[in-house]
Amino acid sequence: MRLTVLIRPKAGILDPQGEAVQASLATLGFAVARARVGRLVDLEVEADDADAARAEVERMCAELLANPLIESFEVVLEDA
Amino acid sequence: MRLTVLIRPKAGILDPQGEAVQASLATLGFAVARARVGRLVDLEVEADDADAARAEVERMCAELLANPLIESFEVVLEDA
Repeated sequence: MRLTVLIRPKAGILDPQGEAVQASLATLGFAVARARVGRLVDLEVEADDADAARAEVERMCAELLANPLIESFEVVLEDA
Repeated sequence: MRLTVLIRPKAGILDPQGEAVQASLATLGFAVARARVGRLVDLEVEADDADAARAEVERMCAELLANPLIESFEVVLEDA
């Protein structure tokens, strides 16, 4: 199954990369009130069903993919 | 309006970060057939309607956010 993990800096956590993007967009003439940069991980995992796949990927997030102190994550099932 | 840009390495483009994630997950005992790492940008833009916002963000991608040679991007409208 294909799943995507969306990892974002938590609200209130400083995001210098997002600030740089916002400043660069402003320089180019784009009006952006806020920009925050996170990352995504596309995964292909073996699992019996969607719930099992989601649970497995949440364990991956807790153990490796995300830093729970400063990041939040969201698991999206792309297909079965 | 809040939009999210999902930026991924194109198919066929080497993704060493994804390979490192896959190897680390395997070391931890997770069976992952494929891992690809991209990034996401959450944006808050001023626009009259959803179509205008989406068009504006696609211009931002072309001019700054994504590298069209090696990356593909997808614009997702989060809310109005």
